[in-house]
This record gives sequence, structure tokens and C-alpha cells, in this order.
Amino acid sequence: MKQIIKNVIIINPYEEPVKGFVVLDGDKIDRVVSGEPEERADSTIDGEENWLIPGFVNTHGHAGSSLLRGAGDDMPLDTWLKTIMWPNEKRFQKNTVEAAGDLALVEMLKSGTTTFLDMYHLNMPEFAQKIADTGFKAVLGRGMIGLGSEDEKKDKLKEAENLIKNWHNQAEGRIVTAVMPHAPYTCPPDFLTKSADLAAEYGVLFHTHCAETAKETEQHIDKYGLHPVEHLHQLEIFKINVLLAHAVHLETEHIDLLKKCNVAVSHNPKSNLKLGSGIAPVVQMKQAGINVTIGTDSTASNNTLDMVEEMRMSALIHKGLHEDPASSSAADVFASATIGGAEGLNIPGTGKIAAGYKADFCLVNTKAAHLTPNLEERAVSHIVYAMKSTDIKDVWIHGKHMMHNRELLTLDEEKVLFEADKQAQKLL
Amino acid sequence: MKQIIKNVIIINPYEEPVKGFVVLDGDKIDRVVSGEPEERADSTIDGEENWLIPGFVNTHGHAGSSLLRGAGDDMPLDTWLKTIMWPNEKRFQKNTVEAAGDLALVEMLKSGTTTFLDMYHLNMPEFAQKIADTGFKAVLGRGMIGLGSEDEKKDKLKEAENLIKNWHNQAEGRIVTAVMPHAPYTCPPDFLTKSADLAAEYGVLFHTHCAETAKETEQHIDKYGLHPVEHLHQLEIFKINVLLAHAVHLETEHIDLLKKCNVAVSHNPKSNLKLGSGIAPVVQMKQAGINVTIGTDSTASNNTLDMVEEMRMSALIHKGLHEDPASSSAADVFASATIGGAEGLNIPGTGKIAAGYKADFCLVNTKAAHLTPNLEERAVSHIVYAMKSTDIKDVWIHGKHMMHNRELLTLDEEKVLFEADKQAQKLL
Ligand SMILES: [Zn+2]
Ligand SMILES: [Zn+2]
Repeated sequence: MKQIIKNVIIINPYEEPVKGFVVLDGDKIDRVVSGEPEERADSTIDGEENWLIPGFVNTHGHAGSSLLRGAGDDMPLDTWLKTIMWPNEKRFQKNTVEAAGDLALVEMLKSGTTTFLDMYHLNMPEFAQKIADTGFKAVLGRGMIGLGSEDEKKDKLKEAENLIKNWHNQAEGRIVTAVMPHAPYTCPPDFLTKSADLAAEYGVLFHTHCAETAKETEQHIDKYGLHPVEHLHQLEIFKINVLLAHAVHLETEHIDLLKKCNVAVSHNPKSNLKLGSGIAPVVQMKQAGINVTIGTDSTASNNTLDMVEEMRMSALIHKGLHEDPASSSAADVFASATIGGAEGLNIPGTGKIAAGYKADFCLVNTKAAHLTPNLEERAVSHIVYAMKSTDIKDVWIHGKHMMHNRELLTLDEEKVLFEADKQAQKLL
Repeated sequence: MKQIIKNVIIINPYEEPVKGFVVLDGDKIDRVVSGEPEERADSTIDGEENWLIPGFVNTHGHAGSSLLRGAGDDMPLDTWLKTIMWPNEKRFQKNTVEAAGDLALVEMLKSGTTTFLDMYHLNMPEFAQKIADTGFKAVLGRGMIGLGSEDEKKDKLKEAENLIKNWHNQAEGRIVTAVMPHAPYTCPPDFLTKSADLAAEYGVLFHTHCAETAKETEQHIDKYGLHPVEHLHQLEIFKINVLLAHAVHLETEHIDLLKKCNVAVSHNPKSNLKLGSGIAPVVQMKQAGINVTIGTDSTASNNTLDMVEEMRMSALIHKGLHEDPASSSAADVFASATIGGAEGLNIPGTGKIAAGYKADFCLVNTKAAHLTPNLEERAVSHIVYAMKSTDIKDVWIHGKHMMHNRELLTLDEEKVLFEADKQAQKLL
């Protein structure tokens, strides 16, 4: 199917805006052209001079815990885990996790996310089916805490493998899978190694939390005599494709090691701030040449799945921390939230408005006070420093129109919100 | 006129939500009642179970420079001032500043701000007239850099005095005035003292920037042998009501001094981050008992005038910096952005939904994925950590309905955006 989105201003991070149109061929962008189209297509949409931007790529999250948004805030991590997270998660039913997953899909789509990574221990095959059915694009993994009996651990790895077998490169390539042990501090070395072997066997990404809090990092060093980054390196896990979530508590030698081993990082600034985990050394990592992508983590610790907010936070916080406004640029952060994320997730041909790339993009309504003066040369600045995710009016994923004028086309938003409220009531 | 807003959930920072209605008597809240109203009023509005929250109080800004949003980012402060701010401000015409002021009013109203402070050197009487005509509520001051000839300085103080004479407690009490010398580093001691004398004479607030950047603060110490806070104290300026903007670079003794002298602070986290000024010691100031309010500064350095964003930033950043999630609470930050701000601005009876308070409030549409699960006991958390300013659907100021279903009732939004774009084009 040939689609044309005309009368738009096409914005990529490092390029001059193009006033023109985009031609789609099936799930791909066929051409980006300036001016007015004279050709015909199966469908032509008038973008009304709005911005056409790449969809956001959210590189770390846990959709299944979305119903815990606001269940507990402003408390020390230990208290929060023991009084909020774990007791609630124990009460999770199939319906709870399904409602949470749907809620996350609605929130992400309405805020312009077109690709996301999800790590969760419950209901992942069902979530994959929902993603396949609704047109979303995701990297999915069975979250695995490497504790418990040998049988339990085997079962977890088996589930992870089954997810790969059943879902890797499925749904017209919109779903890929990864191996996702929870963290070095919750997974013994042999479990990490087995996970890495599994990832290597199937050629998929290895994704884990790493050095999120100072306490966890210190305890790891006490236990193993090695920083978690050194530990993963020693276990030869960095020989495969690895994406680490958080990476807050690193010294220079760990940053150098990540760069040397071509490890990507998912920076989750809002979650790290809210839980009091700290502020990741993003400026140093970027200077070293590491691909620092952006993720939201879950609503239990954020409390939104909004990549526009996350991008803004990432753009601002490091300038203030280092007292250096030149330490990052709007274009850099915009790239991290789009094409950089896709590269970190190992999904080629995603995250840019250019010929041959997948047709994953958003239309942004620029008629708003906070986007005025609306001058083309300020578009990238406005996207990072002023745009709200609610300015995003339309979304396409793999050429499929997913949201039009903020109405979702493949999900029943009202029903999803109703069900989420209902299931949350049951948890109380 | 008697108005009723029924079928709402009334949310104040430290109180249990009230499911009920609000009765207005003219510009004031007469009663907050639970349940359904049986009485009649001149106007009854059905809030459809949405939240009714206090309007936000923005304690620091410069509306007149709004057209510089996105004109220059990511550059060192010096370069930014020399290549962006000053050359542009030199080209400002009356039309430029008027368009900028209108743009700021639209942006603030659409994001739920009902009271704001504004410091600017151009067009202030005309801006006051616009505020009087459109129903807004503000603390206005003629921004004064204390440099130039004696005549120039006298003229500035004369303009400041005229603004007070003409506008203090005008527009049904919606406009009050203040004396606003720019900063200790741009105003010699005698100019600061004259400013303070003027404020004392008329019993109005004294407002100035203070200790925004490390460099400016160090230079001040080099020049005067005193930190700017000590300097203001030595000049006996803290004997009157003072609100300091920024207060980023303080030591413990300065915090103690501010507390002792009952000085309030306007914390502008996003501007401080974006300009690389640093992160104010808000946790320490609050622990000392200082009233830390919240402000946006101007779009030239923010780049939004959105108190919801500012509140969220303030709630998150200090937890991360101190690696302590318990260092602030959602209720504290919500209070700082509402009633705390009004107290810092010296405007009694503002910032709370309670009998006798001015009817300044917002209706928040809670039907959104990012506010789900929508449980009453999570409302304050959602307001601080998840709400977007675009969820605000209606706004009242002094009992006047200012926005309904996101349509402005006293300003022509389309015309304001058009004019802002047009005037910005002229600056290029
Ligand atoms: Zn996580
Ligand atoms: Zn300022």
C-alpha cells in the first residue's frame, strides 16, 4: 500500500527541516521529498504544516506493573519494595498484568512511543500477542531473578527460550526478543552465564539492570570483589550484544570498559531521581563514545511512560549537575530518544525519517503557545525543551496508522482505562 | 454572583480529597461541601468527577522575553547573553514586548497558572492594563539594572514608583506591585538601598535575583568581601519583605541568615539546569524552615512557563541529587507551587480551596492513561508525578471563568499566537 503524508515539516535531529511530504511503501518510508506531491497514492493525508518526527524508542520498562502508578512515593527504596512493590506483585493475577500491559500501551502510544523494550516475569507471551494484534513494536524478554531452586531457575530460562522461539522476529518483524536476567545482584554468576549462552545461541540482545543504586553496587563489590560492570566483563558476557539499564554508579574505568566492549546503556533519569538512585554519568559516557539511549522504567517508579518528559529531563539535568549548558545539545538528546534507542535495541532501519527506514513516526500539532514562536530553525529545540507529548496528534508504526487526532485506532482507550481502574481496586 | 462547581473531587496538598462541590460568592470561595448541592446559584457547572485543585502560583518570570523561546540553547551563559539575549532585546519594540506578554499569558493560563510574578524593564504599565482587562492576577515590578548615569537610575526608580502608585492593589485587587532591582551584581549598594527604601515606603515586596551562578557569586565576594546574601543583610534590606529568585549558590550560614530574616525563595529548577547555573539547596532550605516557592523564569531559559513541569522537576531532582527519595514529598511540592507561592508573594487568602480564599482554581480532566489508576488517595501523587498541564480543562481566577474545555474566554489565543510568530520573524 502506498501512502502519502503531505504538507508537513520533516524533522530529524541533525538535519535541516524539510518542508514537503513522505511517501510510504508498505511498512517503509520510500522517499522524503520537499514541496507538494503531484503523484497519487492509496491514501493521502494532509499534515497541515505540522512536524513529522521519528517515533520515540523507549529502551527500558516493565509494563506489567503499570497499575502501581502512585501506589507509594517518597519513601526509601527498601520500604517501597517491602511495603508496596512486593506485596502488590504477589497479589497480581493474570487480569492485573493484562490490564497493566494495555494501560502501558495506551500511555506510550499517546505520548509518541513507537518502539519499546519490556522486561517482565508474568504474562509475556500474552503481552506479545497483544502487541502483535495492536500494531505496536517491541523488544520483549522474560524478566528473570536468578534465585530459587535449580528447577525454578531452569523453568525461567525455559520460559525465556520459549519466548524467543515463539516470538523472535514475529508480527511482520515488529516483535523481537531478548534475554533479560534481572540484575547481577539478583542473579548468581552461573545464571548470568547461562542467560548469556541463551542470548548467544539465538543471536538476541542481553539486557539487565546494572549499578542502579550505590548500595547494591557496593554490596556487589563486597560479595564478588568486582564492580558489576567488571563482573559481567569477567563472565565474558560483553562478547554478545548487551544493553544495560541505569548504569548510575560507575567509575571512569567502568565507562572505558563499556565503551571498549561496545555495550549500550539505557538512561532512565526520572526513575533514578524518584527512587533516589542518583544521576548517571551520561556526559562522561557520551564523551567516551557509549550509545546512551533513553528509557522510562515503569510507572511504579517514574510515574509516567512519557519519552518527551524523559528526553527533556535527560537534556536538562546533566547541564545543571555539571554547571555546563554546553554539555549536551537538543539534537543529541533527540537522537538518543529515537535512532540511538533503536541502535541500542539492535533494531536496524528504525528511528529516522529517511528512505528505507521503517515508517515509525508522529505528527506534532505545532499550534500551541508553548511551541511559539514556531520557527523551523527552532523545531529541534522546541521538541526537546518545550513540546508536550499531548502535542502529538497522529502516530504511525510500520506504516500502520495507530493514532489519529489523539484517537487510538487499534486499542479501545476507554475500555483499557476502565479495566485498569477496576483491577487496581482489587489490589487494594 | 453565586456560582457552584459541583460533582468534583477537591484536592488540597495535605488534606483528604473531598467529593462534593464548591460554592463561590463573587471572587471568593464561600464553602467547600461534600455531597450533592440542593441549593441554586446564578451558574452551576458540572465538574464530571474531575479534580478541582488550587491554581498554580509562579513566583518568578519575565513575560516580555517570551519570543526568545528556543532562540539559543546549549551554549555557555556568556555566549548566550552576548549573542542571543542582549542583541535581541536591543531590537525589541513595543509590539515585540506586547506580543511576548500576551504569549506568556496564554501559555500560563493554559497550564493552570492563576497568579504570577513578573519582572521586566519594558512596557510594564501596558502589561498591567492587559492583566487588568483579561482577568489575570499578578505581582508586577519594573526590572531595574542599577547601572548607567545617575539620571538613568533615577528614571528607573521613578518608573518603579509610578507603577506602584498606579497599579498597587488595582483591578479588584488582582494586581499588586513590587520593587525589583535586577540583582546585587548588577546594582550597586546605594541603588539596592534606594530600592529597599521605595519598597518600605509603599509596603510592597522587594524582589531580586540572587546567587544564580557560581561565577557571579564569586565575583560579588571578590568585589565586596561578602556573599550577596550577607551583603543584602548588611544593607538592612532583609528588614522588609523579600523574595529572592534562584538562591543556588549558598552555604549553610546563608541559609540560616535567610531563615532568621524570614526571606522567601523562588526556586527555578528548570532555568537553573538549562543555563548550567546549578541546583539550589532546596532540601536544606526547607529543613531550615525557609518558604521555598516555585517559579519558571522566562522561556528564554526554560523553555516553558509550565508550573506542572516545574513542580515535577522540583519534586524529582533533589531526591536524585541527595540519593534520598524521602527528602521531599508530593504534598510539600504541591503546596510550594500553590499556597506557598502566594505566601512568598505576600498575597494572603490565595492558593487553597477553602472558605474565604480567593476563587483561583483549575478543573483537571482525570480521564487519561497517565492518571490511571485514578484512585482518590493517589490524587496528590498523580498531580505532582504524572499530570500534564494539558489535563487542566478549566480555570477560574477570582471567581471569573478564564478557560473552559481548554478554550480561553478572555484572550484570543489564535490571534496571540499569530502575532507572536509575526513579531518573532521581525527580530531575526
Ligand atoms: Zn527496571
Ligand atoms: Zn529571572
